Amino acid sequence: MRTVYWHQQHVRMIDQRRIPWELALVDLHDVEAVADSIRDMTVRGAPAIGATAAFGMALAAQNSKAQTVPELLGELGKAADLLKASRPTAVNLAWAVDKLMASANGSDFATPDEVRAALLNAAQQIADDDVDINQRMGKVGSVLINEQDTVLHHCNTGALATVDYGTAIGVIRSAFEQGKQFHVLLDETRPRLQGARLSAWEMEQLGVPYDIIPDTAAGFYMRRGEIKLVLLGADRIAANGDFANKIGTYQVAVLAKENGIPFYTVAPTSTVDLSLATGDDIPIEERDKSEVLAPFGNAIAPAHFNARNPAFDVTPAHYLSGIVTENGIVRPPFEVNLRRAVMGEQV
Amino acid sequence: MRTVYWHQQHVRMIDQRRIPWELALVDLHDVEAVADSIRDMTVRGAPAIGATAAFGMALAAQNSKAQTVPELLGELGKAADLLKASRPTAVNLAWAVDKLMASANGSDFATPDEVRAALLNAAQQIADDDVDINQRMGKVGSVLINEQDTVLHHCNTGALATVDYGTAIGVIRSAFEQGKQFHVLLDETRPRLQGARLSAWEMEQLGVPYDIIPDTAAGFYMRRGEIKLVLLGADRIAANGDFANKIGTYQVAVLAKENGIPFYTVAPTSTVDLSLATGDDIPIEERDKSEVLAPFGNAIAPAHFNARNPAFDVTPAHYLSGIVTENGIVRPPFEVNLRRAVMGEQV
Repeated sequence: MRTVYWHQQHVRMIDQRRIPWELALVDLHDVEAVADSIRDMTVRGAPAIGATAAFGMALAAQNSKAQTVPELLGELGKAADLLKASRPTAVNLAWAVDKLMASANGSDFATPDEVRAALLNAAQQIADDDVDINQRMGKVGSVLINEQDTVLHHCNTGALATVDYGTAIGVIRSAFEQGKQFHVLLDETRPRLQGARLSAWEMEQLGVPYDIIPDTAAGFYMRRGEIKLVLLGADRIAANGDFANKIGTYQVAVLAKENGIPFYTVAPTSTVDLSLATGDDIPIEERDKSEVLAPFGNAIAPAHFNARNPAFDVTPAHYLSGIVTENGIVRPPFEVNLRRAVMGEQV
Repeated sequence: MRTVYWHQQHVRMIDQRRIPWELALVDLHDVEAVADSIRDMTVRGAPAIGATAAFGMALAAQNSKAQTVPELLGELGKAADLLKASRPTAVNLAWAVDKLMASANGSDFATPDEVRAALLNAAQQIADDDVDINQRMGKVGSVLINEQDTVLHHCNTGALATVDYGTAIGVIRSAFEQGKQFHVLLDETRPRLQGARLSAWEMEQLGVPYDIIPDTAAGFYMRRGEIKLVLLGADRIAANGDFANKIGTYQVAVLAKENGIPFYTVAPTSTVDLSLATGDDIPIEERDKSEVLAPFGNAIAPAHFNARNPAFDVTPAHYLSGIVTENGIVRPPFEVNLRRAVMGEQV
């Protein structure tokens, strides 16, 4: 089952807020509901929200009462703005929306229905490509995992974070499917607990041996020599290799460097934003303090207590051993090699 | 109000599992209940469990039906073993129990009642000394906090972690009482959330400006240049300055070093264990995975999911800018200067 897909003229997705307790589906019938589902994290994960936004554009086109192509394009522009504003950090969202707008604008469509068909087709293509790309990344990255390794993973980068298969967890999955024996430590990833809730649930499904650890324990296991490799995802990669990812990624990177452990991000080239020279320009979302003070409704402290909740951080490129993409493992100098991978060259 | 005290022939303490929701007191009428209160973290914090164990010894003596001094000493030996086994990492517990046993053994007591009186007196002395020592440490360490600083703190080291006043939070309190204006960021400190629950509650009481942050965000604020100083406690300090403290301390230390931020532990000399040459020999408690999977009864993942829960880590001495003790700020070389401070010399 895919995380998000087109179903009977609307968008259907897994409600990730209910995992690991139940596998519930939500049906979204207009673009506003799609934007809300991204904002409230019914769906999350950079590639997954990219595909979701693409389907949101297709849905906006389908629902439009526009009688002419220019009228429809005007409405699509508004839908694009709405979707892009739903979350700021992951570039895949804007990338997918822009791709859909280019589809709508790019051909000389005679009727609104032709635009509608083209957009649905483009959204489906993004979703299908995502699965294909993840499987390629999985295979490419699987060489990094050795027999008996313990691999540290942060946040969730599995099937749920993508349309299917996963990025960093796709690598883990590919190595596991090849019969390698290894163990995964999952940072629980406060405040939203994507590691403890989503990644652990995926490990249970796949049968990969794992343990959840509090985020505070990652350094402990590194210093003891247990962790041999760090694999995690990315929400936006700048041209120089600096990358934004789930809050806590930067400190895992620093700890890996201090302990001499290889540290890789796994991301499709659609996550690379060549328009940004460095990570300093990546917008960092700050979310409501209630996510810290009352995770999933269970209060850990009174609601009036003070808390801060940055959702992402930026890790400078010099901490990276490499970037696993669908076109190979990009290694330093990232300024040169990342651009080559984005242009489709095998690196 | 003190965290733990002698009240009408028994031990009374704040139930720290109920903070920040209510200030509830628990009455303990036998040494088994005292050991349980340490094990289940009704009371926690190295100095607080030291004082608690001391009162536990006094309680064991009082409750004993022994008719002779040797008989009483035999029972006290068993009480000492029970208390020492309740938690392994913080040395203050064994230190206090040994101190009480030395009191019982040290004088030529004629009757069991003389032993009982001496033990209660010794326990009271440990509790009173703890408050006095914390106030001295607070004053000593307060010079480290500058106007407009943001100070990062991990776990809880306040009045609740001690008999009263606190160690690292004692320093914060002392600087605040001097009228300094500064801000505190509190690591929430998973899995037991001592930062979000206990330290935030203490900041609310004191009026010190603070924000709780997820443990994943400490590096984010360091890299942004917001954090100017790290202050935290210790559960056991080896002769070379390596120290055990709440899980997550090691990674805060590594991040502070990477970002050039002064990093201090604040602990009474009773936390120093000169019998251990390095931190490698400090026993690290691993607690039940339910503390990770269902914090305070609120499940974040199914109980059958796998999780690991190391309660402490060891930070090598070379990460430390200094150790704030009641006898001054100990600086490298720690092998020499720590011993001097333990021997009572002002450093």
